[in-house]
Amino acid sequence: MSRFLVKGLQNLESYTPGHQPQNHDFIKLNTNENPYPPCPSVEKKVSEKVNSLHLYCDNSTKELTKTFAKYKNISEKNILFANGSDEILAFSFLAFCEKETGVCFPEISYGFYEVFSGLFQVPFEKIPLNDDLSIDPTTYFQKGKTIIIANPNAPTGLCLTLDEIETILQNNLDHVVIIDEAYVDFGGNSAEILTKTYDNLLITGTFSKSRNLAGARLGYALGHEDLISDLNKIKYSFNPYNVNTLTQTLGVASIQEEEYFNNCTEKIVNTREYFKKSLEKVGFTVLNSKANFLFLRHQNHSGEKMMQYLLEHHILVRHFLNPKINDFLRISIGTEEDMEKVLKTMKEMVK
Amino acid sequence: MSRFLVKGLQNLESYTPGHQPQNHDFIKLNTNENPYPPCPSVEKKVSEKVNSLHLYCDNSTKELTKTFAKYKNISEKNILFANGSDEILAFSFLAFCEKETGVCFPEISYGFYEVFSGLFQVPFEKIPLNDDLSIDPTTYFQKGKTIIIANPNAPTGLCLTLDEIETILQNNLDHVVIIDEAYVDFGGNSAEILTKTYDNLLITGTFSKSRNLAGARLGYALGHEDLISDLNKIKYSFNPYNVNTLTQTLGVASIQEEEYFNNCTEKIVNTREYFKKSLEKVGFTVLNSKANFLFLRHQNHSGEKMMQYLLEHHILVRHFLNPKINDFLRISIGTEEDMEKVLKTMKEMVK
Repeated sequence: MSRFLVKGLQNLESYTPGHQPQNHDFIKLNTNENPYPPCPSVEKKVSEKVNSLHLYCDNSTKELTKTFAKYKNISEKNILFANGSDEILAFSFLAFCEKETGVCFPEISYGFYEVFSGLFQVPFEKIPLNDDLSIDPTTYFQKGKTIIIANPNAPTGLCLTLDEIETILQNNLDHVVIIDEAYVDFGGNSAEILTKTYDNLLITGTFSKSRNLAGARLGYALGHEDLISDLNKIKYSFNPYNVNTLTQTLGVASIQEEEYFNNCTEKIVNTREYFKKSLEKVGFTVLNSKANFLFLRHQNHSGEKMMQYLLEHHILVRHFLNPKINDFLRISIGTEEDMEKVLKTMKEMVK
Repeated sequence: MSRFLVKGLQNLESYTPGHQPQNHDFIKLNTNENPYPPCPSVEKKVSEKVNSLHLYCDNSTKELTKTFAKYKNISEKNILFANGSDEILAFSFLAFCEKETGVCFPEISYGFYEVFSGLFQVPFEKIPLNDDLSIDPTTYFQKGKTIIIANPNAPTGLCLTLDEIETILQNNLDHVVIIDEAYVDFGGNSAEILTKTYDNLLITGTFSKSRNLAGARLGYALGHEDLISDLNKIKYSFNPYNVNTLTQTLGVASIQEEEYFNNCTEKIVNTREYFKKSLEKVGFTVLNSKANFLFLRHQNHSGEKMMQYLLEHHILVRHFLNPKINDFLRISIGTEEDMEKVLKTMKEMVK
């Protein structure tokens, strides 16, 4: 820390991303990446654009927004793209979280919500989960502050129903409710349809998971055009050219190749369900995840020891230190082949 | 605007980027882009990476930072990359601009400094230029606040000497002085050497201009390792994966192909000097720019009318409404061929 850092941020604790090893000797299941490469047309499409990179990208992301609007059957005014959904969330903190009222989110969820609260100095409240780690929608009624809920939630993979989300919206009409749908394409139900009725609903999403583009950085917001207009105001006051030319091109390609997208997500969902059943047979407790990861524990083995064991067998998974979930592991769903190896190792581990 | 936007930002005026026409019928000299494409190896290098985009990018930008550190002959700890230098500047506002003391910058400079002040609600002071539009370094002594100066300044292209910058640093030892070197490679002197002596100096730079990569979005900060550590704290609290995989690859390629970089900047500097002399011969007053643009006026023609005339002749240039400079045009330096056409049109204009 320098002697110049502003006083308000001297105790800021930043986010710790999952370990990204430089060598490829691991089966890497710790950051919920898609195990399949991007859709086949990307190499050609990117090649066509590389030689125009001396020119600025389109700051209005026009072609990308138009393509996504058509795909989603909504207006372009209801969409904003950004440099990953983390940037959308950061913009949302700036736009919608008053320092007087603050923000609330589930006690166990994506760790970045608390980090944003620290960075933008917005007070936060963590709302407890049920004992089974599910979210009780009634605990979000009349909060008098901005709400963020990941649906499916991370790292549990558990979902709220659309009816439950609607009750939260109805009971917070004067505050923005952000539903973070990073993992929705693996079996959740998007609250997209509710944006037509509720002007306080903002949905965030990403091309990192279901669209095989974590390394390209592309996230989006969906919501009432006034909310999107506010986020645009932030974007044009922060970094107007935040989505680079190649990422815009990659995004368009991904939306256009719908069959590839559907095949990849279907394979991941099938692998997840097979992996879940197989683990349950050998004594694991596995939450009913609708995401591209499973959250699981075993009554005879601590989370930390299991993580260590898997690491020694060149399998990277995520373990959290929070005492409420430190018996659990979060395991991303890889290829069928990789998950067979992981299954074999995990069976040996608990034998 | 929605009814949910935080009170403090309801009057925020965001930045207006230069016009980016979708068709290519213009000679586009309005956003200081490099007229030459990226270095030759990029297509191959990008193609090699496209199929790994389902994996996250390296959030530490290790290879890129190492390559740049070697090129600059400084330590990796003195460098931070981000999604364009606008993002570096935004991080710097968060890290180093206290709301109690604020920030100051030249009255006429990059318009985004004032926008950041609005976004982060930091009070700002605009410091007048000399009558010839140069910066008087003594007007920055003992300001008691963060300082930002573009060197070369925009849109004038005029430079402070390193001695002048050093006096500003010496007279503000307890505040960060940010030198924005977006245009330094076209004939300015980088203050890089002073980062070894002054822990209050932060330099920002970009690959958008001299490195032909505006559409890839890559900016950097150079400074004392404690300042860089503070900026990293912001990055890891805002968007840890802010520089995508392909942009990191493009950055490395650009640094490695030094000859191409030198050739492009040399061509642009030569074209600028030729264009300047030719315009002076037909009565234009042209500031002594060390950037990839010229700032000029003609005593018989208003800036707005000249801009209109050029637009009608399919030449896009930048005109500013600020009454102190509204007689001027800022014209980016294009290819020799394009600048010959522009010269011909401008000669006809003032005939």
